[in-house]
Amino acid sequence: MQIETVQQHPDRYRVLTGDRPTGPLHLGHYFGTLHNRVRLQRMGVELLLVVADYQTLTDRDRADRPAEHAENLVLDYLAAGIDPERTTIFKHSSVPALNQLLLPFLSLVSVAELGRNPTVKDEIAHSSQATVSGLMFTYPVHQAADILFCKANLVPVGRDQLPHLETTRTIARRFNDRYATSLFPEPQPLLSDAPLLPGTDGGKMSKSRGNAIALGATEDETARLIKGATTDTDRHITYDPERRPGVSGLVQLAALCEDRDPAELAAEIGDGGAGALKRRVTETVNEYLRPLRARRTELAADRALLRAVLAGGAERANAIAEATLGEVRSAMGMG
Amino acid sequence: MQIETVQQHPDRYRVLTGDRPTGPLHLGHYFGTLHNRVRLQRMGVELLLVVADYQTLTDRDRADRPAEHAENLVLDYLAAGIDPERTTIFKHSSVPALNQLLLPFLSLVSVAELGRNPTVKDEIAHSSQATVSGLMFTYPVHQAADILFCKANLVPVGRDQLPHLETTRTIARRFNDRYATSLFPEPQPLLSDAPLLPGTDGGKMSKSRGNAIALGATEDETARLIKGATTDTDRHITYDPERRPGVSGLVQLAALCEDRDPAELAAEIGDGGAGALKRRVTETVNEYLRPLRARRTELAADRALLRAVLAGGAERANAIAEATLGEVRSAMGMG
Repeated sequence: MQIETVQQHPDRYRVLTGDRPTGPLHLGHYFGTLHNRVRLQRMGVELLLVVADYQTLTDRDRADRPAEHAENLVLDYLAAGIDPERTTIFKHSSVPALNQLLLPFLSLVSVAELGRNPTVKDEIAHSSQATVSGLMFTYPVHQAADILFCKANLVPVGRDQLPHLETTRTIARRFNDRYATSLFPEPQPLLSDAPLLPGTDGGKMSKSRGNAIALGATEDETARLIKGATTDTDRHITYDPERRPGVSGLVQLAALCEDRDPAELAAEIGDGGAGALKRRVTETVNEYLRPLRARRTELAADRALLRAVLAGGAERANAIAEATLGEVRSAMGMG
Repeated sequence: MQIETVQQHPDRYRVLTGDRPTGPLHLGHYFGTLHNRVRLQRMGVELLLVVADYQTLTDRDRADRPAEHAENLVLDYLAAGIDPERTTIFKHSSVPALNQLLLPFLSLVSVAELGRNPTVKDEIAHSSQATVSGLMFTYPVHQAADILFCKANLVPVGRDQLPHLETTRTIARRFNDRYATSLFPEPQPLLSDAPLLPGTDGGKMSKSRGNAIALGATEDETARLIKGATTDTDRHITYDPERRPGVSGLVQLAALCEDRDPAELAAEIGDGGAGALKRRVTETVNEYLRPLRARRTELAADRALLRAVLAGGAERANAIAEATLGEVRSAMGMG
């Protein structure tokens, strides 16, 4: 499904999505997911954002300051326009009734199915751990619990995440079949039309690669990162992501901030070279983020507010999870 | 550890044990486990009994009337002398904070370790399911959550269940090491000195084999089952479990009920043959169980009481689980 379809009947959808609290969000997150979430919220779609703190343990032994990162994630969400009055933001670890769904759901998938899940394989390939943990192996089942606890019927996914949602759909279908109920929807993927924004080195934008412009970076830090961006020696600026990833990434970033066509924007800079391009990108990014950053600075001073948002979200998520778990117990005859 | 060691310092131990609610308890359960639990309770050892309703899904697709069986389990417990004021009886599915422990604990074991766990292998061998489910595969981790949520330091196990407890001990140790805490004890096995009571056909006593005398059977049903027991043609009664499993099972049952030595009891019957043996066993079993059955009949009429016991147990178990989960979150820095 595309976001335009959702727009026609926003009240028909409940969206579950979220992030792992591993560090500050950057422009890749912003244009890749966050921007669309704010759009959905504005349309009137009900949105739940899970701060997936347990999932930080999927590919590493210990989570680094998970509570602090969770609060900072809330900070980035709020600064970007997520309204905690309309959108439920909660930590995965704060909702025991959600996590209990893992048990009935684990009974609905086989070890063989988990072993050949492409997302698990992918997670394993990117893991920093020597062995595959039980948490990693059962990861698609946690995601099913995260999604189905609130009966979300729409989940934003990248194209590489489709198999992931397939496990959730399978679990929903099998639960309904086995217990002769229609308790769970089979959630649909909401495919993003957002182009993948590369980092300042032309590669995948990622905090750990040092090529990411954090939403909360200062204007000077932003300028410095863009100044150091990888370009090439051709002074004529074009938009050609295949052959000129560095230059094209910068063009794309400016185009996203200005809501312009990247080829047009490149033509405008023409023979100005990488220097002119970088000045334009720096100005345009800093201008675009100025209101967001102003809100962020204001909010950052109020840690109590961030914690209150998580507490309020946990309360709402727990109420939803307990209601669903009650229905699950009842469908299973557990009383 | 043996129960005699426990007796010296009963206040040092917290015991977690339980049963799957799959049907009425029989004399095999009674002399195998229940009797010892009542002994532990009388010594003043703190006891928690989990009605492992999710675990009924470990080896079958659907649980058969789990709520009803759970209440009947409570009925058998109470009739046998478990005091719900001193012992916490709770359903696994009623304690979300316990089940949430599955997530951090799954991060502490590898898929390879789960795959070679002997108890999982054994469960798989006895399963009625065509495939190995995720629930079955992660079973030792659920057990770890069941045991560690209340920081039980003593777990009654059969000798074949030792590897099971090993996973729990490993998880406790790894959690403590990784998060530099001493939150969890490494629980010790409490080895039962109870001999394995065979069924009336000389094989393993099991409801599904029709060779089990249920605690709640009537005296007539008991007599009928014993009358139909497998014996042999040698009229001289001896206690020789290896060569005469049928006769020896009956001798053993009478000896347990009379608290006598089985060889002595056999000698007493001497040349009376299987008929005399069966009459003796019938009388002695029915006499032994008479007070238990009288209590059971009384309690069985009060389903509200059985439900109240489970509700009270769930409340206590939830309070314990939430406290432990709070400590776990805090040790993990999740706030």
